Amino acid sequence: MEKLEKLYEGKAKKMYATDDPQVLWVEYMNQATAGNGAKKAQIAGKGSLNNRITSVIFDLLAARGVKSHFLKRVSDTEQLVRRMDMFPLEIIMRNTAAGSFAKRYGVAEGTALSKPILEFCLKSDDLGDPFINDDGIVALGLATEEQLAEISRQARAVNQALLDIFSAIEVQLVDFKIEEGTASDGTILLADEITPDTCRLWDLKDHSGRIEHLDKDLFRRDLGNIIPAYEEILSRLNGLAASEGITESK
Amino acid sequence: MEKLEKLYEGKAKKMYATDDPQVLWVEYMNQATAGNGAKKAQIAGKGSLNNRITSVIFDLLAARGVKSHFLKRVSDTEQLVRRMDMFPLEIIMRNTAAGSFAKRYGVAEGTALSKPILEFCLKSDDLGDPFINDDGIVALGLATEEQLAEISRQARAVNQALLDIFSAIEVQLVDFKIEEGTASDGTILLADEITPDTCRLWDLKDHSGRIEHLDKDLFRRDLGNIIPAYEEILSRLNGLAASEGITESK
Repeated sequence: MEKLEKLYEGKAKKMYATDDPQVLWVEYMNQATAGNGAKKAQIAGKGSLNNRITSVIFDLLAARGVKSHFLKRVSDTEQLVRRMDMFPLEIIMRNTAAGSFAKRYGVAEGTALSKPILEFCLKSDDLGDPFINDDGIVALGLATEEQLAEISRQARAVNQALLDIFSAIEVQLVDFKIEEGTASDGTILLADEITPDTCRLWDLKDHSGRIEHLDKDLFRRDLGNIIPAYEEILSRLNGLAASEGITESK
Repeated sequence: MEKLEKLYEGKAKKMYATDDPQVLWVEYMNQATAGNGAKKAQIAGKGSLNNRITSVIFDLLAARGVKSHFLKRVSDTEQLVRRMDMFPLEIIMRNTAAGSFAKRYGVAEGTALSKPILEFCLKSDDLGDPFINDDGIVALGLATEEQLAEISRQARAVNQALLDIFSAIEVQLVDFKIEEGTASDGTILLADEITPDTCRLWDLKDHSGRIEHLDKDLFRRDLGNIIPAYEEILSRLNGLAASEGITESK
């Protein structure tokens, strides 16, 4: 597999073409951003950690029957994925009130939700990624009724599988953001990344009642260095993967 | 029926108890507000017009099989309604992109929507009436899954009936806000008001391509006096009602 021209550079990843038109080469960067890019930093080691974390999560998900665009990791900071036509949606699942949800509805952060909440935002830096509901998605032509039903089904299945994975490593999965796309054969698949950049992860190991953030809130809220937290998540995930006979793909 | 103590005073209406515990006495005020109360004015005649408009609309809806809390109009500015336990939701139906929807998603005002859009906002002045989706409503306990399904069904039925009513009087029903509640016998019913304060109504009579607003946007956007517009809506609605054998209830 050959790495060819750069197709796209986002806030945290670069995407390259390969000699296979169905495969993209993804490079994870050290850049961290928050608040729609308002806050920005280079954090040595972040690209490598996120590349390794999302790879092992995609493997753990596959072992639970949840398919994704992930093919394999090819270096510390790079992986191969299926080329997808992405839906312009941020797909958010929430198990516990936190972040924008807690603020929007005046609910204390940490409040358990009586059922998992699925939310969508229209991906648009210019518009500030506005919240959108199912009717809006269909009326604006962002997905058909059938595609939206499949995306929603998959988002809930990803949540169930991730809850299983994170509870096994004593981490509370508060909420997370995924993206989905359509492969060339029309299959709708989980894509993008699942990392502490895109999940809220609270340590369930005893910290005397204090929330120990193991995610990007450390950066967003200036609570501390993200690297030891991300290393802790990777180490626990690798432990779980090893116990299931999954080895890091490189 | 006797008008007893005042129970509640909102931005546009006062509610009084009556000697029947199942009946409320509503008084429509001349106050106009916009932007969550940031803009405020007294407009002589508005209370009477809105009371008469919502009364004839509730009658026209009843003739189309859509029930509501409305019992009867008792004066120019007053009406009797069934006492309801209200859901803390603004229920918004959109047929054409306008207002907050157009702004939120960067869609030109006036763009036809491929399907009617149902939106909910949590009624909370403190939180600025935030947008909420179905999962959020259920998770926060604002309505059960079953109640929400019934509210949604009714909102779409109200939209169909209102589209029929307004097209008959050459008015484009762009969008509108309703509220719903539960009567003492458990029935979920349309409540609150349907007036040019709560609907966007564009004249379909020829104005050489210019939008002629017949609604509160005249006040919100400083486009002109609302009174002649509201009088025009009432006059056309009364014409339609007369043609259907409905006479103003007082």
